[in-house]
Amino acid sequence: MNIAEIKKRLAAFAEARNWDQFHSPKNLSMGLAAEAAELLEIFQWLTEKESVEIVGNEQEMGHVKEEIADVFIYLVRLSDKLDVDIEKAVFKKIELNEMRYPVELSKGDATKYSKRRRVDDVVASKKQKKGGHN
Amino acid sequence: MNIAEIKKRLAAFAEARNWDQFHSPKNLSMGLAAEAAELLEIFQWLTEKESVEIVGNEQEMGHVKEEIADVFIYLVRLSDKLDVDIEKAVFKKIELNEMRYPVELSKGDATKYSKRRRVDDVVASKKQKKGGHN
Amino acid sequence: MNIAEIKKRLAAFAEARNWDQFHSPKNLSMGLAAEAAELLEIFQWLTEKESVEIVGNEQEMGHVKEEIADVFIYLVRLSDKLDVDIEKAVFKKIELNEMRYPVELSKGDATKYSKRRRVDDVVASKKQKKGGHN
Amino acid sequence: MNIAEIKKRLAAFAEARNWDQFHSPKNLSMGLAAEAAELLEIFQWLTEKESVEIVGNEQEMGHVKEEIADVFIYLVRLSDKLDVDIEKAVFKKIELNEMRYPVELSKGDATKYSKRRRVDDVVASKKQKKGGHN
Repeated sequence: MNIAEIKKRLAAFAEARNWDQFHSPKNLSMGLAAEAAELLEIFQWLTEKESVEIVGNEQEMGHVKEEIADVFIYLVRLSDKLDVDIEKAVFKKIELNEMRYPVELSKGDATKYSKRRRVDDVVASKKQKKGGHN
Repeated sequence: MNIAEIKKRLAAFAEARNWDQFHSPKNLSMGLAAEAAELLEIFQWLTEKESVEIVGNEQEMGHVKEEIADVFIYLVRLSDKLDVDIEKAVFKKIELNEMRYPVELSKGDATKYSKRRRVDDVVASKKQKKGGHN
Repeated sequence: MNIAEIKKRLAAFAEARNWDQFHSPKNLSMGLAAEAAELLEIFQWLTEKESVEIVGNEQEMGHVKEEIADVFIYLVRLSDKLDVDIEKAVFKKIELNEMRYPVELSKGDATKYSKRRRVDDVVASKKQKKGGHN
Repeated sequence: MNIAEIKKRLAAFAEARNWDQFHSPKNLSMGLAAEAAELLEIFQWLTEKESVEIVGNEQEMGHVKEEIADVFIYLVRLSDKLDVDIEKAVFKKIELNEMRYPVELSKGDATKYSKRRRVDDVVASKKQKKGGHN
């Protein structure tokens, strides 16, 4: 994906319309949250199964694609304004997640409320069992 | 940006931990909205000016980058599950926006409440002035 | 519920700490959205059935109650700042919804994607069938 | 405010239309987040000052009131489904906040990034200065 190209198109779009003045990171973060919620709304009344099957409904998928695009547009615009390298940040976060959620501790974890048992929580709970102080 | 690589890493991460069962598009849309709100929260008490200046604060920028990554991770995972080509959807939406908000109508628009005057709204308002019916 | 009492407590809380300066409606709307997403996050990995059963889990319910309170606190603070009578606005909206979604049209509507068929959509679709123009 | 009356109206509304089946807490939390974002969107391009002045614009205030109502409707419906006493939860949270943010520590705090210095953070930072271990 050519992020640089997308950044250029979005910057040109804003400048041509004299809208750059409204593109503070604060406002862009609001736009991003608003679009993420429009995407959320598509799935609001669907069951999880229906949400999987949505891929077979062309009209709904058109709507889904538009909202995914809107979220990404705000993310790129915000990253451009704050000089954030999205790809670099993503791989860094994936590595952090791989470290935080070791396979051995996460696999087969059926706890409803802690789908994501963090390694630090497990370490802490081991300390407690030993009678150690936190 | 190598989206295919990111998709693979995220799919492997979920499968290794047996978490794929939780990754319905419905649930992923919830995760995306939740992370977008965590990004929003960073700017909540900042003025627009302070939000621009945040780029000079290393600690806060670390937090910003992590949340941007989280939003993008959910967006890629959801797009993978629904077979959406993000880049294609984005350029399609940019073109639609360029058509909806022609420069001539948008430039210098100082209306507080309609920063984004849509061409269709302008056409409609012209009809009204002519005494036409909507 | 004594909304006036809650408004007073929240106003006093903000003024005592000199935080009123941060309570613009813009910022308060951000806080409200952020807290709504924290509530959303509790249900993110639960199935709909598990979300119904959460009422039997004391620890999780403690978390749910806290987030419900946070959302309501921001809603009341925002309503106070903008002089909105929440109760009046709610009954007005309920009446509007009862008008928009007549029982005869809504009952038994099994369409996955339009759980909420609006009377105006139905009228429009009837026009189309007649070959009318929209 | 008569919350019991609102709960009854909303329950009757859902049951009459056979929509109760869609009102799992999971789905209701999605609706709440979606409406909170619609409220957020009204303020997205406004400055903080313009957001204060919005109270003088009748048309915009009509929109604000409708979204405030929508958020509260979902909050009440969710609280009804999970048997949560909103008023009780709110006063409990206000007391917790008053304890977490003592006036002495919070007043005049001009730190951009920690508008809300928590008493536990202050205690922790005091420990660090003493050279203690966390």
